[in-house]
This record gives sequence, structure tokens and C-alpha cells, in this order.
Amino acid sequence: MFVDLPLEQLRAYRPERGEPDDFGAFWTATLDAARAAAAPPTFTPYHSGLSTVDVHDVTFSGFGGHPVKGWFLAPRGAAGSLPCVVEFVGYGGGRGLPLDWLAWSAAGYAHLVMDTRGQGSGGWLPGDTPDPEESGGPHSPGFMTRGVLDPHRYYYRRLFTDAVRAVETARAHPLVDATRVVAAGASQGGGIALAVGGLVDGLAAVLPDVPFLCHYRRATEITDKAPYYELTTYCKSHRDHVERVFDTLRYFDGVNFAAHATAPALFSVALMDDVCPPSTVYAAYNHWAAAKDIRVWSYNGHEGGQNVQRVEQIAFLRDLLKLP
Amino acid sequence: MFVDLPLEQLRAYRPERGEPDDFGAFWTATLDAARAAAAPPTFTPYHSGLSTVDVHDVTFSGFGGHPVKGWFLAPRGAAGSLPCVVEFVGYGGGRGLPLDWLAWSAAGYAHLVMDTRGQGSGGWLPGDTPDPEESGGPHSPGFMTRGVLDPHRYYYRRLFTDAVRAVETARAHPLVDATRVVAAGASQGGGIALAVGGLVDGLAAVLPDVPFLCHYRRATEITDKAPYYELTTYCKSHRDHVERVFDTLRYFDGVNFAAHATAPALFSVALMDDVCPPSTVYAAYNHWAAAKDIRVWSYNGHEGGQNVQRVEQIAFLRDLLKLP
Amino acid sequence: MFVDLPLEQLRAYRPERGEPDDFGAFWTATLDAARAAAAPPTFTPYHSGLSTVDVHDVTFSGFGGHPVKGWFLAPRGAAGSLPCVVEFVGYGGGRGLPLDWLAWSAAGYAHLVMDTRGQGSGGWLPGDTPDPEESGGPHSPGFMTRGVLDPHRYYYRRLFTDAVRAVETARAHPLVDATRVVAAGASQGGGIALAVGGLVDGLAAVLPDVPFLCHYRRATEITDKAPYYELTTYCKSHRDHVERVFDTLRYFDGVNFAAHATAPALFSVALMDDVCPPSTVYAAYNHWAAAKDIRVWSYNGHEGGQNVQRVEQIAFLRDLLKLP
Amino acid sequence: MFVDLPLEQLRAYRPERGEPDDFGAFWTATLDAARAAAAPPTFTPYHSGLSTVDVHDVTFSGFGGHPVKGWFLAPRGAAGSLPCVVEFVGYGGGRGLPLDWLAWSAAGYAHLVMDTRGQGSGGWLPGDTPDPEESGGPHSPGFMTRGVLDPHRYYYRRLFTDAVRAVETARAHPLVDATRVVAAGASQGGGIALAVGGLVDGLAAVLPDVPFLCHYRRATEITDKAPYYELTTYCKSHRDHVERVFDTLRYFDGVNFAAHATAPALFSVALMDDVCPPSTVYAAYNHWAAAKDIRVWSYNGHEGGQNVQRVEQIAFLRDLLKLP
Amino acid sequence: MFVDLPLEQLRAYRPERGEPDDFGAFWTATLDAARAAAAPPTFTPYHSGLSTVDVHDVTFSGFGGHPVKGWFLAPRGAAGSLPCVVEFVGYGGGRGLPLDWLAWSAAGYAHLVMDTRGQGSGGWLPGDTPDPEESGGPHSPGFMTRGVLDPHRYYYRRLFTDAVRAVETARAHPLVDATRVVAAGASQGGGIALAVGGLVDGLAAVLPDVPFLCHYRRATEITDKAPYYELTTYCKSHRDHVERVFDTLRYFDGVNFAAHATAPALFSVALMDDVCPPSTVYAAYNHWAAAKDIRVWSYNGHEGGQNVQRVEQIAFLRDLLKLP
Amino acid sequence: MFVDLPLEQLRAYRPERGEPDDFGAFWTATLDAARAAAAPPTFTPYHSGLSTVDVHDVTFSGFGGHPVKGWFLAPRGAAGSLPCVVEFVGYGGGRGLPLDWLAWSAAGYAHLVMDTRGQGSGGWLPGDTPDPEESGGPHSPGFMTRGVLDPHRYYYRRLFTDAVRAVETARAHPLVDATRVVAAGASQGGGIALAVGGLVDGLAAVLPDVPFLCHYRRATEITDKAPYYELTTYCKSHRDHVERVFDTLRYFDGVNFAAHATAPALFSVALMDDVCPPSTVYAAYNHWAAAKDIRVWSYNGHEGGQNVQRVEQIAFLRDLLKLP
Repeated sequence: MFVDLPLEQLRAYRPERGEPDDFGAFWTATLDAARAAAAPPTFTPYHSGLSTVDVHDVTFSGFGGHPVKGWFLAPRGAAGSLPCVVEFVGYGGGRGLPLDWLAWSAAGYAHLVMDTRGQGSGGWLPGDTPDPEESGGPHSPGFMTRGVLDPHRYYYRRLFTDAVRAVETARAHPLVDATRVVAAGASQGGGIALAVGGLVDGLAAVLPDVPFLCHYRRATEITDKAPYYELTTYCKSHRDHVERVFDTLRYFDGVNFAAHATAPALFSVALMDDVCPPSTVYAAYNHWAAAKDIRVWSYNGHEGGQNVQRVEQIAFLRDLLKLP
Repeated sequence: MFVDLPLEQLRAYRPERGEPDDFGAFWTATLDAARAAAAPPTFTPYHSGLSTVDVHDVTFSGFGGHPVKGWFLAPRGAAGSLPCVVEFVGYGGGRGLPLDWLAWSAAGYAHLVMDTRGQGSGGWLPGDTPDPEESGGPHSPGFMTRGVLDPHRYYYRRLFTDAVRAVETARAHPLVDATRVVAAGASQGGGIALAVGGLVDGLAAVLPDVPFLCHYRRATEITDKAPYYELTTYCKSHRDHVERVFDTLRYFDGVNFAAHATAPALFSVALMDDVCPPSTVYAAYNHWAAAKDIRVWSYNGHEGGQNVQRVEQIAFLRDLLKLP
Repeated sequence: MFVDLPLEQLRAYRPERGEPDDFGAFWTATLDAARAAAAPPTFTPYHSGLSTVDVHDVTFSGFGGHPVKGWFLAPRGAAGSLPCVVEFVGYGGGRGLPLDWLAWSAAGYAHLVMDTRGQGSGGWLPGDTPDPEESGGPHSPGFMTRGVLDPHRYYYRRLFTDAVRAVETARAHPLVDATRVVAAGASQGGGIALAVGGLVDGLAAVLPDVPFLCHYRRATEITDKAPYYELTTYCKSHRDHVERVFDTLRYFDGVNFAAHATAPALFSVALMDDVCPPSTVYAAYNHWAAAKDIRVWSYNGHEGGQNVQRVEQIAFLRDLLKLP
Repeated sequence: MFVDLPLEQLRAYRPERGEPDDFGAFWTATLDAARAAAAPPTFTPYHSGLSTVDVHDVTFSGFGGHPVKGWFLAPRGAAGSLPCVVEFVGYGGGRGLPLDWLAWSAAGYAHLVMDTRGQGSGGWLPGDTPDPEESGGPHSPGFMTRGVLDPHRYYYRRLFTDAVRAVETARAHPLVDATRVVAAGASQGGGIALAVGGLVDGLAAVLPDVPFLCHYRRATEITDKAPYYELTTYCKSHRDHVERVFDTLRYFDGVNFAAHATAPALFSVALMDDVCPPSTVYAAYNHWAAAKDIRVWSYNGHEGGQNVQRVEQIAFLRDLLKLP
Repeated sequence: MFVDLPLEQLRAYRPERGEPDDFGAFWTATLDAARAAAAPPTFTPYHSGLSTVDVHDVTFSGFGGHPVKGWFLAPRGAAGSLPCVVEFVGYGGGRGLPLDWLAWSAAGYAHLVMDTRGQGSGGWLPGDTPDPEESGGPHSPGFMTRGVLDPHRYYYRRLFTDAVRAVETARAHPLVDATRVVAAGASQGGGIALAVGGLVDGLAAVLPDVPFLCHYRRATEITDKAPYYELTTYCKSHRDHVERVFDTLRYFDGVNFAAHATAPALFSVALMDDVCPPSTVYAAYNHWAAAKDIRVWSYNGHEGGQNVQRVEQIAFLRDLLKLP
Repeated sequence: MFVDLPLEQLRAYRPERGEPDDFGAFWTATLDAARAAAAPPTFTPYHSGLSTVDVHDVTFSGFGGHPVKGWFLAPRGAAGSLPCVVEFVGYGGGRGLPLDWLAWSAAGYAHLVMDTRGQGSGGWLPGDTPDPEESGGPHSPGFMTRGVLDPHRYYYRRLFTDAVRAVETARAHPLVDATRVVAAGASQGGGIALAVGGLVDGLAAVLPDVPFLCHYRRATEITDKAPYYELTTYCKSHRDHVERVFDTLRYFDGVNFAAHATAPALFSVALMDDVCPPSTVYAAYNHWAAAKDIRVWSYNGHEGGQNVQRVEQIAFLRDLLKLP
């Protein structure tokens, strides 16, 4: 069943944004500090058992100079300069194994998969990156409310910074054509891609697939599904902190990042998605400030288009990047 | 939580088998008829958007000469003779897209993915192969009870025959080394691989991952999870046909196929798997008549080892096939 | 809780219909072919252990001339010409036992209960009629999507044809007054009765009780309960076939059959019915082209009025048929 | 899945009984008092709209002389002396409508359906009989714990007394052969039939179908399904009354009534029944002191054999009563 | 997620009331009869093991002169005249233990906790008060439909009368300042407090916390959660009694009591409360005829503000009663 | 229903312990380091609105010298030396409000409630204490797997150390008789009390109520309820770390702490508790090395005895401490 507004209303849904005055300053300072703390990345050859793909185990400096893990895959024997997809993982998952990420290298791209700090123990793709920064204050199980009373200590400040640094790491790799780097991901990965799209210039494209991390307050009002429900749980205990929670989240809202976008985007949305309800996706899509298109999956839930969306993305990039 | 016997009892669990006297004759006649009805397979190049893999859209003759679809993937530009994995799909899924099946070609194998007749509309991987044979008689929703009152009309007679024909199709392909063909699959795919392992000689290996379709009666007595529950549903309506149902299933039980195995096998089992309970897997494993090993995933449900099992399989085959 | 529009809006709810141009031709050809293939029905006395009812085990020719089972019950020792109720069964059920169908003969009617091809193994009333025609193409578990890409191969083409043939079979029975035949059923049975009401002239009455099989697309958009959910599941896998599915269903929509009705009808609807939501029932009711009335059960779910509705039906027919 | 002991252990399961010393005295006094308070029953012709059945609306004196409702059905125009089935209703249901009870009159029996005092508002068959006696003390929602701290005030003392009085009412009816009266019912109705079987001499047969109200303590220890769960809920609040609860229940346990049985019985049990677990049924069956047989439904839950069991009952009585 | 109208609509939600013409007469007669039947209360010292609180086990005369239990707590060694909170318990609970009720005496109040007749066996706080009056007629499990066809026999007529008598009992206690008595409670306790607020003059304040027992019909139309669902269950069985049920409830609706209020009130409401939906609370709040305020808990369900609301209540009373 | 072994087997259930050789050294070093880092506690008067209780907002130094919050309650105007209960909170809860903790001061005790670092945002009692130490490595949502690969970095090393420090803080308070300090708590609080009982000498008593944090591995094998399920989730992702997880937990197992106990204990256990299954509680109880008793709640789940257990505890301490 449909879980949100009718499609015609969704197409027009463009709510007021609540961007803080110091949004740009906040992020500039955050990213500059991370760059200042960064060490050069390491790319260690990894014996994956695969014969058509070269895999490297990556460590780069994320927020606070913290080491962040990843996988770098490229078609065996490829020489630069390849277009590159930087991919972010869904909520609760980590980088898993190279076998989990074969599509983009098979399609001829370099591919950097960023591990998700602290995550990757949710019964799904395992992760290998700690989150060594303490968020401050009690929080609900999960990651949505870690440090949520203070934008400077909020978990996603660290994670979005890692993501920007992942793009910078990819751009600096000798196999990669730095002018053809794409940010991509589904669900939380899509929300991270949105953030990257608002924080990084010169991206070739952004591919937010059923993105999470948009229009938080409405999300808590219309769905009780995890992970947005973690915010509800926190506010249920901390009745006096509700406004402060949503003040913090204004610095991390995909709707605000969308308004700063400069690269073309291919979104997806699913009309039966009660995890990332369609109106929260359209809120970001309709504020996206650059070229954009969206695939609508009418009879899908949060799984969205799955590899059918992947086929769409491959075709979208081929046209955009004028690949053969 | 653990869902079945303790591990030490599982390791010793080897129930009496109930193989029908005409088990071999039944299958010989079945397979001979299919071969007699077969037309040559077609392999049509498929534009998958991938650059490191050559993909062909396959049609081969299965049970009754019916056309069965599949994908054939191989590393781009590979020349024979490659080892080949023939893979079968889990319950409710079809062949999906080539993007869904990148592992084995990336590992240097030819890879034939067989579509599942009639299946592939379960909200998951779509399928493209009809099941043109009528099973006879009413049945429960799903495929477990189609024709279940008569071994000759039972759905899995057709599907297992398709699978044997898939192996024969792979063996005949010019890229494939017919002496190094492996049958593999998870869940229903693992159950099909077990059947193939009992019906086909000269396989290089069999890889049944958390296999379904074993020790049916016990399964219905200890779990209410689909798809074994379809048998329960059927027997709930047809109170007078219970014995007849289980008589038919003796021709299709992985426990009986295991006793005819000739190729080395790498199984997997998960101790928290309430879909394919561990004792049903061990019943087949402990009857497997050839060399064998098993990976035990203590804290996993029916997802089993996922790509960690795939890594195990790749290593197992590398040793077995003496690959570089 | 109420699951759909408020009652005052339901009473006025009369959506646009999407009847295909060849709707009439499609059905005329379909029914003519079935009649051409028909053999005479057989009525075999059945020892039911009952002493006030004569029971016959019926076999008549349905779609494609296929044998369809049924029960024929009449008050013991009755002589023609009796009014007759032809009844269709709810989703997943078959004809069961004569003991399951004692009401109408006790009320003085001849009563033909039609078995449901392929169904009757759902853990409920067992069935005895195979569906020997292959629907073509993969489908979701259940019957809603069998052949759904092609109106000619769709399961309900066969089932609705069986139902018309059941009415014709009843009319030809020596005990039955052919001018006083009534089509009845609840849920799927009510949807079949609607179809019969649009396809057969000269019925005495139609009794669709909480009918299923109406206004399919809205149903999938407002409920996730089975069996409408089978359509959702199918569309979830087959993202590219959504429009084709609903194009097929236009030939089988109770809303369209209603617009061709010629006999008086007594409907029922339940305001807490999330299986057959009230607006889908009112869509058919408000398009019903002949005399009509409806019983509204405010605090009931899909069980509707149960035997209280049966009492209403008996009274409705008594007035209509001017019975003593 | 099976919910209790394996069948071979069930067949031998005969737990110690805990019959109170004054069990007989308690019931003799109870029944004598009811008889002393009784007024003659009334049988009012009821216009049911049926033509093969004569229906009377019954009021007879139950416990405390309280008026208890019922339906009396007989084949139209029958003259005495008919065998008669006295039937008791499942938990939460009342006498409903005559249309709900057509089987036994259709089979040639007189049929008295007893309403269940206080029950009949559970969303199912409505009831018409109040329970004018106050049970004393707080109780859990439902009927299982009304007055449970004192055998004299326990709800089932009143209900079982009603049931004995229903048998006596049937026996006195001019259409009924008092030597051929049968007590029957499913679930709670079966538990009541067991009680009647232990309290009334000279019954022709007892038909306890998946009986409830047996071996209470074990039931609460092995299932959390309603209605046994009402006892659990009560004991959860009243931690100091656990032993007193089970002391009371010894006067109302089907296991104890079974030990006083004098009439032949046909039981049923379902191996997947988690409402009335099989061991609680076998506990009564194995203590049944007269001739007995049992139908085992292996793949059924609490629905048991449904009308297939009814067919068995009709055949069992035909043999027993030497009916034509 | 929010479960009802948006907050701005809730603030304005003031539905038509349906107060019966004899509402006042009904309650005057009811209360007068109870007072006429009353015996003096008893206050028995209770050894609670507590050293800062004096506890008495209370028995007072409620409806029909029936003995109703309670606890009376006061700061050890306090001398009159104390303000007093009379508190009513949520659905299914009884008076429990003195340890369950330490807040108001710790805050310096006398505190009378009224037991809930018949309730207190729901797996939660136990109760000790029988409901010796028979309600008449079958009813659903629970207390909502006991005697619901007749206002004179409805359960809540007795319970609300008990509550008025509890206030009168408190006022007569030597420790209590009769001009400073407060009626309080959460959920069912809040609904009882509303009733008391409409029936008793001269209260110092009323504290209805997420009150139940308001705007019944809308409640049944928008939620399926217990206990409002008991009404739905009853109407599901008794299809012919729906209007009569809601006619009875007009005498017991918090919306009608609110319109007769004379004391200042502090309400609470929770926007995610699907047990007592916000619009049913606002319906009473917006009709409250005296001074009023409300605390809105945006991210809470039926637990509402819990002890944070208690802190609000303590502060509200301190200002109102001009306590130190 | 019972969820574990029969009571007679539970009473004898005393599994092998797996205490690490350096268990004592590990804890001695841990506690010494915390003491070395400690600053003096602060006790700030808190305006709670209560008049019979003096409340202080406490901050003391826990693990690593980190500030840990708490409440200190005592009867108003009490002078030393009082017995004191140090209480720990259940999983997911924090110290909440003083109103949440009125029992022990009302019973005449000083009462220190320790906040739970990091916890207190689970939709229940809010907490105010951050967990400033980073645990290292990814973890599952919740607290059970934070740092679980290394005993030195495991979350419960910090929390148990806080708890020992809380006891030391209480002992140093001028109102408290340091020889009569009791460690108490339910669920997680009970598990912490067990740890304190094994780590601190000279306690007057330990009151572990339905304790959590015992016999972890068996718990994961027999229940899927949170929070033990967090371990299952972690192991589900990190298949290669299973043994390492349980090696770490040996340092934190209530079974091992019990073997070092020196103070008398009153346990409780609930036979229907599927959160902290009875055998895990008995495993600790049967290894408790000092005087002990246990209350068994047969018909309760994880709520156990609630305030009935509190009454038992008050009586137990009165005897033990020879209070008036």
C-alpha cells in the first residue's frame, strides 16, 4: 500500500527549509580541520580470490584524522584515468567483503567503498572502523542520536566528513580521473551521497537511492520504522530536548545539502517505502539545485529498484560521462 | 537462539532413509525422456552494460523439452577451457539480472545461472521461465505441493530435471571444461544442487549452502516457517492425503540423493536457521556418500555464511581443482 | 477501526471505469468456446450421512471443457421446480464437504456449490478440481497473478467461465426452475457472483457478500492484506510490467461487470474490512446497473454479516421470488 | 509444527489425577440444588426462514434456576422418538442463529444447542444468556478466573450445571428418546461434554472434540495461547493465590470427569494445537473410564478435524445407535 | 508517529456533545442511592514496612453500599488539615501495594487510592474489590461492555459512583482539609477523574492524565487498541445493538462530564497515543467548563509524561493551593 | 508458559564456570586505577517538590575518574548512621527523577541510585551520564557489544567499576553506616549487583532481582529476546569473532562474580522470564558462595515479583540488619 502522499502531491512537495545561518561556516570549519589532520591514505593489495578485479584494502584519514577503512576495486590491469564511484553503505552495515561490491568495477569503474565508522555489527555486512570520538551524552541504541544535542558532537558530523574525505582520497588515486568522480549510495548511503553532493564541488554526478537522512521531523511524525524511530525513542525519554534535537539535525538534513548541490543527480524513490517515506525523499529532490532526474518505484518498499536501479545508474552515467 | 538439536547430536544425526525401490528407475526414465525431447541450447549475447564480463542470455531444453532461461557469464575475452559453476536459485526467485550474479566470473569461472520455472515473482529476483506442464490437482499457494500426490506430476520432478539439463548444457559449452563442472546453490538452490549431486556423475564438486528440500517430514514437525509450511498447509486441508504426500516426497528428498553422491561436497549449515533446520541439513550431510566438509555458522539464521561462505567455496574449489 | 473513506463518502464513491473496448467480445468468445467444448454434466448420488438432504457429487464442463466438481443439494424428496442458488467459494477454499453447505437446501432451495479450480489446499475447505490449463509465465504464490500479463491466459478467465457454466448447469437440472436461479458468494465468491451478474442474463438475483475482485489498483494502494497483496508482490518483482498487469485486470474487474448487470442484487460491505476495503465494494455497488440494496456492517471486518447476512438474503429472496 | 510430546508418548500419557475427596459430594449437592430450583422449560416456535427444520427458541432452568437459552432443532415434521445431540459451544461464543447449527438435524437427530451464560460477545457467535450469579472477587478479562478462588463461586460450576440441566431438558422433550442422548462439543464445548460425561449416567455417547478445560496446570506451563492464558494472567497478578487457583480447578478438570465416565466416547486431538495442547487432551482420554476412541489430526491446529470429524461422529453414532 | 489530527487541528477540536436530557437526573438519583446505602468507612492501620508514611487499609461504601477497598497514605505523624489527592487506577489494575503509591504522601499530601471493583487481575497491579452487582447480559472479555445495553446496569455507573464516594470518604477524614481535595488519575484513572470533576462540586482541582473513557464512538473508529477495542468486539458480535451501545455510553462520556466541570484542571495528552487518541482527549479538554491547562507530550505514546507529568502536577497544585 | 528447564532441574543447575586465570588481577587493577583517578563526590541539594525526603543530586568519580551522576535520597531530617541501599538501573534506563525512587527512603534507608553511563535514552527513564571512553571497534546497537573483543575496552568494565565506586561513595557519606550497605537492582541492575557482590567485601547484603548478565552463552542459545540478542546480532555479522566475544564475557559473568561472593543474598527468578531465562539466574544463584535465598515467581515473566519482591527485600533486610 502507498505510505505517504499521492504521487501528484509528492511531485510538488517542496517544504520550507530551515538552514541554520552558519551552515556553510560550520561545514567549512569541520572539513578544514579534517584535512589538516589527515595523513596520506594507504592502499594495500588484498588477496580476494578474484581474478578479474584488483582489490586494495584502503585506510584513509577521516574526521579528526581518524583512520577509516574501505575497499578500492578496479578492473584487473586497468590503467588510469578511470571514472570512479565512491559508495556509502546503508544503516547498520560496514564495508563487508570485496565480494559484496562487484558491480561498478565490472562496469569499468574504479570503485571506492567507504566503511561506516562504528557501524557494521547489525547482523549484516560487517565493518572494521571504530568511531574513536566520544559523542557526549546518553543516546538511544543505534547511531541516530549520538551527540544529537550538539551539532559539533553529532555522529553524522564525523560520518559526513569521512565521506568528503573519501571523495578526496579517490580523486587523488593515480587510476582515477578526478573530474569524473561520482558519489553514490542507497538508504543511509544515499543520505551520505546527498551530503557529499552539497559539500563537494566538481562531482561528475550524485546517485542517491531511496535516501535516508532527509526531513527528519516529518519522518518521525509519519513512520515508526527504524532507524528514524531512534529519534522518536530518544525524544520519548528526553521530553525536554525535542527542539534541541531538531535544531541539531538542521545541520545534517539532506534537504539543506540538496539546496547547495552543483552536480547532476539521479534519485530513486519507492512509493511503498515506510523506512524512508517518499515525501522525505521528494523534499530533498525538489530542493536539489542542479540537474536531476528520479526513478519512481511504485510497488516497492525500501528495497526500491535494487539492481534495476543499478542498470539505470549505469546508463545514466554512460550518457553523462559520454562513455563508450 | 538455537532451533534444533545441540551440535554434538547434530553431528551424529543420521536418520533412516526411505528410498523407494524404483528411485533409480524413476529418475533414469525421467532424465532420458528430457534428453530425448531436447533441442540445442541458444546463447544470445546480452548487453549488460558491464565491461569485464561477457554475458549471454541462455535458453536450453529442460524437462519435457520445455525452454528454460538462464544467464551465462564468463570473464571477458576468456578462452576455454574454464571450470564452470552451475548455480540454482533460492525459493521464489528467478534469474534476475546479470548484475545479481557477478561473483563466479570475477573469480575466473564460467557461470551458468539457471532460471527457476514458474518462480521469480515473489517480490525478489524476477524470473522469465514458465512452467508449461500442469501439475494436476489443487495445491497450496507456492510450489511445494504442485502435483504432490503423484511423483510423476510433482513440480520438483520438472525442476530437478531442468537442473540436470543445465549441467549438461554447461558441459557442452565450448568455453567450459566438462570435467570441472560444479553444482551450487543456497537454500532451494542448495536442495537442487543436492539432487544434481545424486543424479549426475563426474561432477567436480557440489556446494549445497543451507540446503532446503531435505528430510521433509521432520521439517514440517519442527518448524512453521515457509516454505516447508506449505506442506503443512496442504496436509491441513487434505487430511486424508498425508501419507501420500510423504510417499511422493521420498523421490525428491536430498537425504536420498546424498546417498548416491559421487563428488566431493562443501555444505554449510546455520544453527539458528528455522527455515531449513540444522537436523534436516545434517540428515543429508551425514548420508552424503562421497568426500565432504561442512561449515557451521553458529549465530546465523537462514542467511548462513553469505559471502563468507562464498570465500570458503572459492578456496575449497581452488584446492580441489588445483587452480592457481 | 474504520479502514477506508467515511461512510457518507463511500455512498457517493463511483470512480471512473476503465472497460476495454473489446470487453464484450472477449467474454462472448470465451464463453462460446467453453460451451462448444462442454460435455453433459454428471450428478452422482453421494452418501453424505444426512437424512433431510439429497446430495449429488457434480461434474460439469467449465472453461476449455475441463471437468469442474461441485455439490448439488436439495431437500430430500423435493420435486421440481425449485429456485436454485449457485454458490462460489472464498479465496483458497474448495467445495469441502456437503456438511459445509447446509443452509440453502434447509431454506428450501436447490443449491449448487461450485468447486474452485486449483484452489482448496489453503488450510481450509479442500478442493477437488485441477486447473489443467497452464497460465504462462512466472507468478506469485497464489492465484491472483497466474497469467496476469495476458487476459487470455489469466486464471480468472477460466474461473469466471466455470462460474457461468455452473449457472447453465443448474438451469438445466430437472429439479431447478431456470427462471429463478441466483448467483451468490462471499469474498472471492462474491467477486465471482459479480462477474456472473455481468455475463449472464435472466438471473433472478445476485448476492455479492463483501466481494473481492473489484477495483484492483486502488485495493493494492490502500491495503497490504492478502490476497490483493499478491498483485503487489508480483509488481514488486516485475517492475516493468505494472501497467500490463492492470490492463489485464480491466477484463476481470467487478466494477466493469457491475455496469452490465441486469438482475437485482443484495450486496454487503463491512467498514472495518481491510481485506476487501469498503471503497472497492462501493465502486462496484455504485456502478451496478440494476436494482440493488446493500447491508452495511459497521463494526465488522472481512467476516461481514456472516449468518445474519444469510438471514437477510433469505428474506430478500423470499420477497423477490414471492416465496411463501 | 508439533507443539507437544511425540505421538507415541502422548498415547501413553496418563498423569496422576488430583481429585478432591469431596468431588462427588460437591457435584451432587450442586446439581441437586439446581434441580430443586428448576422451572419447566419453554419451547417457543421460532421463524427461522428454514423449510426442512423445525426450530424452537428454548429457555430452561440452569444453575440456580437461572434461565438459560438454547435452540432446539429437529427435522420438520419428525415425530418421536429421535436420538438427540446436546451441543455446547466454544469459548467466547453463544448460541448464535439456527443457521449456525444445521448439521445434526440434517442427519436426522433432534438437536439442542445450549447458550453459554455470559459469553457470546467475543466477536463471534452472539449469546443471549446473562450470568446473573456474581462470582466474587476480581478476575482477569474472560471467564476462566471468575470466582476461581472458591469452587462454589467458580464460573464453570454454573456452566457445567447448566449443561447437565440441558441434557435433562432434552431427555424430557417429547420428540427425544431419552436413552439415546449424546453430549457433544468442540474446544470449550468439548470440555463441557467431558464434564457432562462424568456427571450424567445413561448417556448414549460423548463426543469431545479437541476439548478444552483439561489438565489446567500443565496447559499453563506449555502454552501462552488464550484462553488458558487467562489463568496465567491471573496468577501473574495474584502471586499469592497460585495454589488456591489450582485447588479450585481440581473440581472442574476434564481429567477427573473422565475417570467417572460411563458412556462410550469419540475424542479428537490435533497435534499442532497450541490452544488445547495434545497432552492435555490425552490426559483426559487416557483416564476415560468407558469405551473410547480418538481421531488424531496430525497436521491440524485447534480447528482439528472440522466437518471431517463431524462425518466421523455421524458414522460413529450410526454404528453405536444402530441407526439405519 | 502521530496517530491522529495535527496539533493545530486538535487544539480546535470540539465536537458536538450528545448529552442525554436526563443526564443530571440519572446521576443525581444514582449518587443519592449510593449515599443512602453507605456505612461509615473503616481505616485499619497497615504494616507496610515503611517508616516515613502512615498507611491505612481503607474500606468504604461505594455503589449500592458495596464495600470498596483503598489505601490511605499520609506523611508519618502528620496532623490535619492536609490537602488530599484521591487517585484512580488505570484499566486492569487494582490498588496493588502501598509501595506502588508513594509520590503524593512524599509530597506532603494525604492520598487515597481507590481500588477498582472487579479489576486488578490483568497481570499488573492486583485488586481486592469484587463487583457484586450483576451487569446483565453477555459481554466481551473485560469491563467496557458489562451491562452496556442499559445505563442503569453499566459497569461504569458503579465505578464512577465508587469514585464520588471515595472523594466523600476522603473529605470526611480528620486529617484532610475538605476544601482542598483533588481528583487524579491516568488513563482509566483520568477518565474517572473527569467523571468526578463533572459530578462533584467544590473540588480543588482535577488532574486527568492521558484520560480514557472520552468520545467513545470516535475512539472505536480510529483505533483498534484495547480497551476501546472491547466495544468494537462487542458490536462485531451484536450487530443489532450498535446504536444502543452508544446511547448508553452518552451517560458515561468524559466529554459530557467536562461540560459540567467547576474545578480547575491540568490535563495531559500524548500525540503518539493510540490507546487514548489525542482527539478524544481534546474533545474533553475543549469542553471542560472551568479553568484548564494541558501538557502536550509530542513524542510519547500512552505512557504520556509519566513522572515528568507528576512534577508538573505537583507544581500546578503548589501554585493553585498556595502551598509553601 | 515455562521458558526453560523444569524447576527441579533448575534448582540443581550449576554449570561449569570458565573463570579466567587473571580474573582477580584484572579487576584489582581496574578498580585501583579508578580509585586513583577519583575526585571527591559532590552532593548538591535538589528541589524535588517532596516534603518527606531529602534529595541530593550526586556526582562521583567512576571508571577513569569519569563523573557519574546519581540521586541520594534520605528521610527528611535523618541523622546518621543509616543503612543504605545502592541501587543500579535496568537496561536502557537512567537515573530518571527522584520521584522514580521513593521506596527505600520511605522504608528508612539512605538510598543512592546510580545513573548508567551512556544509557537512559531508551524511551524509558532518562539518564544524564555520558560514557566518555571509546570502546573501540564497531558494535551492535545497544551496549552489550561495545568493545566486546577486548576485556579492557568492554563497556561493562566501565559500568561495573562505576558501581563499585558508587558503593564506596555511599560508604563515605556521613549519613551512612558503612557496615550496612546493600547492593541492589533488577535485571541489568541485578547483574551489576552480582558484580558488586563479587568485587566488594563487607557488604551487608546483595539483592539481585531477575538478574541479567549471567551465563551469556547459554542465554544466546535459548532466547532471542533483547538485550542478550545484541550478542547474537554481533556474532551474526562477525562470524570470526564468536569465541573472542565469549572469552571477553568470562570477565563479566555473574556466574563468576557469584563464586567470589561474601555477603548474604536474596535473589529472585521468574519461570516465565524469556529475557533473563531462569537457568541463567540459577547458574549464578547456585554458584553464590555465601548465604542465599531465592524467591521463585512461577507465573511471572521478566517483571518478576515487582513490589511484592520489594516487600520481601524489606523484610529480609529487617531480619538481617536487625532493624526495628
